[in-house]
Amino acid sequence: MEASEQHIQYIIRLADDALIQGQRLSEWCGHGPILEEDIALANLALDHIGQARALYTHAAKLEGKGRTEDDLAYFRDEVEFRNHLILELPIGDFGFTIMRQLLYSVFALERMKSLASQEVDTNLAAIASKAIKELRYHAEHAKDWVIRLGDGTEESHKRMQGSLDKLWPYTGEMFVPVADDLWSTETGLCSPLNSIKAAWADSLAQTFHEATLTMPDLDGWMHQGGKSGNHTEHLGYLLAEMQSLARKHPGVTW
Amino acid sequence: MEASEQHIQYIIRLADDALIQGQRLSEWCGHGPILEEDIALANLALDHIGQARALYTHAAKLEGKGRTEDDLAYFRDEVEFRNHLILELPIGDFGFTIMRQLLYSVFALERMKSLASQEVDTNLAAIASKAIKELRYHAEHAKDWVIRLGDGTEESHKRMQGSLDKLWPYTGEMFVPVADDLWSTETGLCSPLNSIKAAWADSLAQTFHEATLTMPDLDGWMHQGGKSGNHTEHLGYLLAEMQSLARKHPGVTW
Repeated sequence: MEASEQHIQYIIRLADDALIQGQRLSEWCGHGPILEEDIALANLALDHIGQARALYTHAAKLEGKGRTEDDLAYFRDEVEFRNHLILELPIGDFGFTIMRQLLYSVFALERMKSLASQEVDTNLAAIASKAIKELRYHAEHAKDWVIRLGDGTEESHKRMQGSLDKLWPYTGEMFVPVADDLWSTETGLCSPLNSIKAAWADSLAQTFHEATLTMPDLDGWMHQGGKSGNHTEHLGYLLAEMQSLARKHPGVTW
Repeated sequence: MEASEQHIQYIIRLADDALIQGQRLSEWCGHGPILEEDIALANLALDHIGQARALYTHAAKLEGKGRTEDDLAYFRDEVEFRNHLILELPIGDFGFTIMRQLLYSVFALERMKSLASQEVDTNLAAIASKAIKELRYHAEHAKDWVIRLGDGTEESHKRMQGSLDKLWPYTGEMFVPVADDLWSTETGLCSPLNSIKAAWADSLAQTFHEATLTMPDLDGWMHQGGKSGNHTEHLGYLLAEMQSLARKHPGVTW
């Protein structure tokens, strides 16, 4: 199969999302509020880094220029990354991290469901099938916490609503198609983003109801840019930390 | 079973070793030199934190004062920790971390083998049986890397020998019995430390031979103190970082 630029770019975008989310979650390693949750968050991080590896490897193979997963993860610069802005924001407190997990996992799950059921790219379908199992758990885990904390103490409710309000303007970007999103719909690789949005909003509305949280306006003003390589200042710091060792010691061969 | 002070202390010591080692390994999360190794180190960290949880829970039950695993991990101060000094040293470069993994995992594996085969404390035997499977993998993983880097480039060889020479004076403490070590031997819970030392030294000698590294003198001057609560300055910083969130938000109930 001769892969188009847009096809490769679409897969790299999926991988970037997984890598940046995994990276942020891994910051909780050893800093969680309880031992059990420390392990849980680290496991979520590992799922994402595993997804990123599979996706980068697939993209590199489609590209056929001899790049590896590590080249794509460690040797691209900020402007080349295409992850959603919401994923690069600093981890904040536990509630902020968990709220982001909810907002993003529900979207990622719907997208992966669509990617798992197509036959345009069967390797991608296989990666997506595996990811679905993980993301289903991530979404449940986040949902349980959001309900527990949203419908918890006065203080925990206030913090969760605050996190939701802060994160919400970063959700719109998920549903504004860039060129390769349009390509993915035309070729039948992925459902249109507005149908994913409908499923996403339904699922969230139900969770927020149980959590006694107020869901902000779906059509309010939204940040954009990550999907086109225009990032917040936070991504640069994240990449510097993540890439420095690999760039200093490529392949750990010294 | 009415557990003695020494029995409880012995288990807490095992748990402290696992927790501190897991904590140091978790610092590699998202900073490994290659994606694959990043995931590998995070998995090792999770094994250790899992072992620590099981051991703290067991100790708390023996103690019978209503403390939980989180109380033991997050609400004890530096002087109460009894981990080996070698585990609290900062992670250094990748070679340093891997060399520590080798020196310590081989010891931990031998100790756990002994603990898995006794009938003085059958709950501990069950925890040890599970840990053996993990530690066997950890020791193999470390051994492979030490050989690859020791017998690698001139630079990697130099770094590995340097790490070995720096870490070596911290190995002696493993084999100098404190009161509860003596108790563990008297009751048949664990083999004498000098028999563990013999197996440990044999295994290492073989690995260092393959790695073209020079094994330092087994009877040289050695640091001591961790097992009695006298720690390096590094443990305080590690605990401050690890415990701060739990102390601020006990149980994440806000």
